[in-house]
Amino acid sequence: MELKAYLKQHRQTIDQALEDLLPDKKLRPTQLHEAMHYSVFAGGKRIRPILMMAACQAAGGTIEDVIPTACAMEMIHTYSLIHDDLPAMDDDDFRRGQPTNHKIFGDATAILAGDALLTEAFVVLSAQQNNKNISAETQRRVIEIIARAAGATGMVGGQIVDMESEGTQPDLATVDYIHTHKTGALILASIQAGALLGGADEETFTALSSFGKSAGLAFQIADDILDIVGDQQQLGKDIGSDQERGKATYPAVLGLNESKRRASELHQQALDIISPLGDAAEPLRQISGYIINRSS
Amino acid sequence: MELKAYLKQHRQTIDQALEDLLPDKKLRPTQLHEAMHYSVFAGGKRIRPILMMAACQAAGGTIEDVIPTACAMEMIHTYSLIHDDLPAMDDDDFRRGQPTNHKIFGDATAILAGDALLTEAFVVLSAQQNNKNISAETQRRVIEIIARAAGATGMVGGQIVDMESEGTQPDLATVDYIHTHKTGALILASIQAGALLGGADEETFTALSSFGKSAGLAFQIADDILDIVGDQQQLGKDIGSDQERGKATYPAVLGLNESKRRASELHQQALDIISPLGDAAEPLRQISGYIINRSS
Repeated sequence: MELKAYLKQHRQTIDQALEDLLPDKKLRPTQLHEAMHYSVFAGGKRIRPILMMAACQAAGGTIEDVIPTACAMEMIHTYSLIHDDLPAMDDDDFRRGQPTNHKIFGDATAILAGDALLTEAFVVLSAQQNNKNISAETQRRVIEIIARAAGATGMVGGQIVDMESEGTQPDLATVDYIHTHKTGALILASIQAGALLGGADEETFTALSSFGKSAGLAFQIADDILDIVGDQQQLGKDIGSDQERGKATYPAVLGLNESKRRASELHQQALDIISPLGDAAEPLRQISGYIINRSS
Repeated sequence: MELKAYLKQHRQTIDQALEDLLPDKKLRPTQLHEAMHYSVFAGGKRIRPILMMAACQAAGGTIEDVIPTACAMEMIHTYSLIHDDLPAMDDDDFRRGQPTNHKIFGDATAILAGDALLTEAFVVLSAQQNNKNISAETQRRVIEIIARAAGATGMVGGQIVDMESEGTQPDLATVDYIHTHKTGALILASIQAGALLGGADEETFTALSSFGKSAGLAFQIADDILDIVGDQQQLGKDIGSDQERGKATYPAVLGLNESKRRASELHQQALDIISPLGDAAEPLRQISGYIINRSS
């Protein structure tokens, strides 16, 4: 397979489906709908949806069955970015080179656009017309996995510990907690949802879950490294901004070289776990390699 | 039935179940969990859960089957209050006589506590252990009903139109839109979820839905009237605060007497619709009468 073409094609599939699934911008309340569209179409790379599609393929499933769930995941990811950027939170004026949601629409609308995207994700996940080939029981399990990953014991939990630890000297356990919750949880849930919707048996589901844990952590370490060594254009945010803020990162705790070694080790673990899945898992292998190697 | 005893008993049932379903305050992230508990146990009357239980009874079902879903509804209602009170939104320092969430925990934690309560509601709705007697297909329908009622085309949509219309001279169509969406949607969804979980056939579901629409609007008109004529202790907020803010209310558009007449008419319509349900609907009748007559 040709990775760039795969990424482009699947990104377009997701973009089109998101356009269809989001409330029409022209319908009341127009300002809210515009704010939702603005951040959903602000240049996201659709990493989580594409990982979900690749995991579905790795489990032997059909990509079409996973598209609405993949869009719901992107809506949740987008809501989390809108709320993270708020003045009361990280207070970011730009993301991916564009003004953040509250800079365009104001704080109140940004809060509500985030709330609405999170809620709309569960509309998409539960609406029957989106999930025709999926049994109600599988869809229930998918909703539970995604809700747990996004909530107090997942992403939101990671975000608050991240905020609390800012400016302190975090230890490795805290950095692990933040990363496995704040970003790792949705990555893992994307892969687990893809596996379930792809019809994975218990063994394959377990293997893909282990892959998701190791690869998800490797992605985050790579991201931390990129914040230090990457160039601004590649990342779309200020270099060293994590450092400036005293954010809890792997390089801050382990140093740059040990962080690189650990990312590489986790990546290899992840690849080993899914080697029995053969050719079906090739997209998943190549995508994870691409994400991790951005920083090396 | 003795209404006061019914309300007290069911409120206690919900309070206990919420205590069991919310993340443990002692577990990490403790600050987030504390903030979630604070607002969930800040004196709410549990109107939506109790309406859901009463609708379940009216449909011939067992209250036990509806308790987790009723708790999820209360979590969603609580999240909406936390976000509405934020400085970027209504900027309220007190609710029900107690400091609002952000006054205690700060804006960032209040935003995240709201996000987490909304998400946790969907964990509760989708987790199998909470819904043992419910088919996966029924639970899927319940999740869809609740998500649609809470999102951009429901509560959040009503909230943003409410904000936009502040200080303007709203017309009746706008006041209708705000009330049917901002508060009516969750009331209706509570009654519909109760009906479905109570095993309502199509006819009963339709009747209870019509009841929910009429009664929900009557509740809101009553609330608007209470803001003008009620005493502060009864309502727990400043009298006339809607007027001061130029909020879109029924009395502002229709006048006090016409608002009273309309609430009474809607209430009678609601009662007529469910008269075929007989004794099983008695709790629903009494509760709706209680809510509406607070203002007369």
